[in-house]
Amino acid sequence: MKVLIYNEGVHEKENPEIFDTYPGGIHGYLKSFIETEDITVETVTLETIDKINDSLLEETDVLIWWGHKAHNDVKDETVELIHKHILKGMGLVALHSAHHSKIFKKLMGTTCNLKWRHDARERLWVINPYHPIAKDVPETILLEEEEMYGEMFDIPQPDEVIFLGWFNSGEVFRSGCTWQRGYGKIFYFQPGHETFSAFTKPEIQTIIKNAVNWACPIRNKKEIICENFKGLE
Amino acid sequence: MKVLIYNEGVHEKENPEIFDTYPGGIHGYLKSFIETEDITVETVTLETIDKINDSLLEETDVLIWWGHKAHNDVKDETVELIHKHILKGMGLVALHSAHHSKIFKKLMGTTCNLKWRHDARERLWVINPYHPIAKDVPETILLEEEEMYGEMFDIPQPDEVIFLGWFNSGEVFRSGCTWQRGYGKIFYFQPGHETFSAFTKPEIQTIIKNAVNWACPIRNKKEIICENFKGLE
Amino acid sequence: MKVLIYNEGVHEKENPEIFDTYPGGIHGYLKSFIETEDITVETVTLETIDKINDSLLEETDVLIWWGHKAHNDVKDETVELIHKHILKGMGLVALHSAHHSKIFKKLMGTTCNLKWRHDARERLWVINPYHPIAKDVPETILLEEEEMYGEMFDIPQPDEVIFLGWFNSGEVFRSGCTWQRGYGKIFYFQPGHETFSAFTKPEIQTIIKNAVNWACPIRNKKEIICENFKGLE
Amino acid sequence: MKVLIYNEGVHEKENPEIFDTYPGGIHGYLKSFIETEDITVETVTLETIDKINDSLLEETDVLIWWGHKAHNDVKDETVELIHKHILKGMGLVALHSAHHSKIFKKLMGTTCNLKWRHDARERLWVINPYHPIAKDVPETILLEEEEMYGEMFDIPQPDEVIFLGWFNSGEVFRSGCTWQRGYGKIFYFQPGHETFSAFTKPEIQTIIKNAVNWACPIRNKKEIICENFKGLE
Repeated sequence: MKVLIYNEGVHEKENPEIFDTYPGGIHGYLKSFIETEDITVETVTLETIDKINDSLLEETDVLIWWGHKAHNDVKDETVELIHKHILKGMGLVALHSAHHSKIFKKLMGTTCNLKWRHDARERLWVINPYHPIAKDVPETILLEEEEMYGEMFDIPQPDEVIFLGWFNSGEVFRSGCTWQRGYGKIFYFQPGHETFSAFTKPEIQTIIKNAVNWACPIRNKKEIICENFKGLE
Repeated sequence: MKVLIYNEGVHEKENPEIFDTYPGGIHGYLKSFIETEDITVETVTLETIDKINDSLLEETDVLIWWGHKAHNDVKDETVELIHKHILKGMGLVALHSAHHSKIFKKLMGTTCNLKWRHDARERLWVINPYHPIAKDVPETILLEEEEMYGEMFDIPQPDEVIFLGWFNSGEVFRSGCTWQRGYGKIFYFQPGHETFSAFTKPEIQTIIKNAVNWACPIRNKKEIICENFKGLE
Repeated sequence: MKVLIYNEGVHEKENPEIFDTYPGGIHGYLKSFIETEDITVETVTLETIDKINDSLLEETDVLIWWGHKAHNDVKDETVELIHKHILKGMGLVALHSAHHSKIFKKLMGTTCNLKWRHDARERLWVINPYHPIAKDVPETILLEEEEMYGEMFDIPQPDEVIFLGWFNSGEVFRSGCTWQRGYGKIFYFQPGHETFSAFTKPEIQTIIKNAVNWACPIRNKKEIICENFKGLE
Repeated sequence: MKVLIYNEGVHEKENPEIFDTYPGGIHGYLKSFIETEDITVETVTLETIDKINDSLLEETDVLIWWGHKAHNDVKDETVELIHKHILKGMGLVALHSAHHSKIFKKLMGTTCNLKWRHDARERLWVINPYHPIAKDVPETILLEEEEMYGEMFDIPQPDEVIFLGWFNSGEVFRSGCTWQRGYGKIFYFQPGHETFSAFTKPEIQTIIKNAVNWACPIRNKKEIICENFKGLE
């Protein structure tokens, strides 16, 4: 399996302390626990985003996306290309503030707006314990520090809600959701603020690794659905 | 529209202070805010449950169910009869501990187990604000005292989740859910402990009244689906 | 209630026989059976599409869309505007080849491709007979002539599938589906080819009128979800 | 993985020609293509149904059910036992007329009625081609002879509809559906009449083998959800 991790990498420049929590930056750190003998991982950042082209995506099984401050700096052509490959079967794992990325909003068809606040304590609850993404995950996970993302979350009804988030500040959130678009599987996961340490928790790593396996296409990516249909003229 | 309210009425006997919160008992109190010129309401309790028969259910559009301590005292024949009428189109609004009633479990096919604890503070959140049951309901409702019901809630995936509950003790819950069974619409709503006062809150009353209107059958209740199908010889 | 009907009106110019089936064109004919004392209907075509502006959409409860040959002639700005108003609560009824309209694809996030063929006989089946859109609709409707639209239909999993289409040529189709996007309700309905006569059938008219009522927003259209959320900086 | 196949085996006694199509009876034939080095298969019939007990089900990962004429001869205690093990995680693959088995109806909470007719030609369509059960399955499968099962099918809204059935006699059907109940995965699949030969087709065998793999529990079967919750007293 081939995984491609995009992390915009802008926070890392402004706030080098991120490297204390996440050596190698968010992309490097994600790679460090995802890569195995069977899973090859490549990373790109906003600086190197031009590496994302048709042939790289053709061989990518799952794309992981972390972005926040520079969503608008991702070119529309790049978004179109990624969209095409997701519809052909490439999986997408959208982490934390990727809810406002161009590609996620294009797939959802909504604003993907939500409520937010800094500095909350979160408790994740599994409400779909038989889902592959919840395999070996305890029924609840405490995150001592996490950014609050709260309902109403402006998303299409998920195919599956796997995790609900509870915040000490009084809010709730659909923190782990799946959707199918074309042949592609999509998982959105809320934890993962750049200066807290969610990705270092073994349970969170288990979820992300499960998600990568789940999102991997079950068939060869050959075409988009009914793509030989050329229009109605 | 004709509404039938079942409240087992056992708590009221053991703890007459309930009448301070809910004059007329839970059933009487529910009736007081549901009944209008257009909505006739009848009530039964465990003591008078034999009033529930085929002809009463035939003319009932929506059944409201509140039970807790005496689920097992409801006869299986009564449950079968109610089940038949729900499949024919009678709506069901299952309140609070009705999650463990025989009729609700029969409709769900699962245990309907959940976690619980006394004495919590709850905050309800609307996550489906365009649903008729959420009409004129604010995006969040604070219940200073409510029993905690927490996930994992052992229910089939709801057709719609309208409310999520947040509890100060750290749990979350799918507090308002809908399902279709046969021609019948079902709404489960978690608030409504016997000694707290959820039903006195105007916002909670709005939800229950909306649910009654939503659950009312849209067609004459004539038959269950494909009931002329007599089996496969 | 205010309904706005868009029909591109291109077929009518090329093939005036359409007026024999649909006096006034498709838009005029739809208006003739939708308009009532309580429902005001306005129509636009591609020629007059510039009438679609913010204030017209602000007062529109439900938009009906019929397009086919000139999807690309609808400007992106117009699509953005319509999209914004749907997210704020305006309903959308997308008819027949509107599956490939820019606005429908933007809402779905997929290609909305399908299989197709001319000159089929279709039988519609109701599989959600308790849905408001199926009210007073018989369990099956025969359309002697209709264009075949067949699976695989590249759409997100619908919130509800109300109608399935059977075609004598061997295909099936999810012919009536609903989705929620933002505050807006969306109904896609497959029958309605320009030279056949589906819209003249009373049962089809009942479905479209039901859909208009169902898609009407249940709350005042004030804002999009969490629109005061200005970004994460 | 351990698979248990129940086939009531009553048709085989009345109509020995079934053995021409299905050597070993339906259960024997299913076993012949499901069993592998990694999958152990045991079979029971109505005559030997008392072999189904707590310890056999404890070690069963997936139960396959084929029944038709003798649904009522399956004891309620057996049904309760199977139900408990499904809620604990045992998968269920319900084939053809198992829609009217006691266990399937108990899980669904509805009548599971449908329309039916002998001697139809069926065409199955995949509408969920990215689902593990559709892996390596062509987009359409022709069954020259199959019993017609038609909508309206009185089932709860499936979590996923994977196959739609088209019948030359004019009907459609949700021929392959999934549901989750407790920790257990359920797949219903419509083809498989006792005197036709659906199970001999490689594509149908692929579907059933995929379903067995999909329905296998992803966690150790230890308990039902919140089973330590002992009631509200």
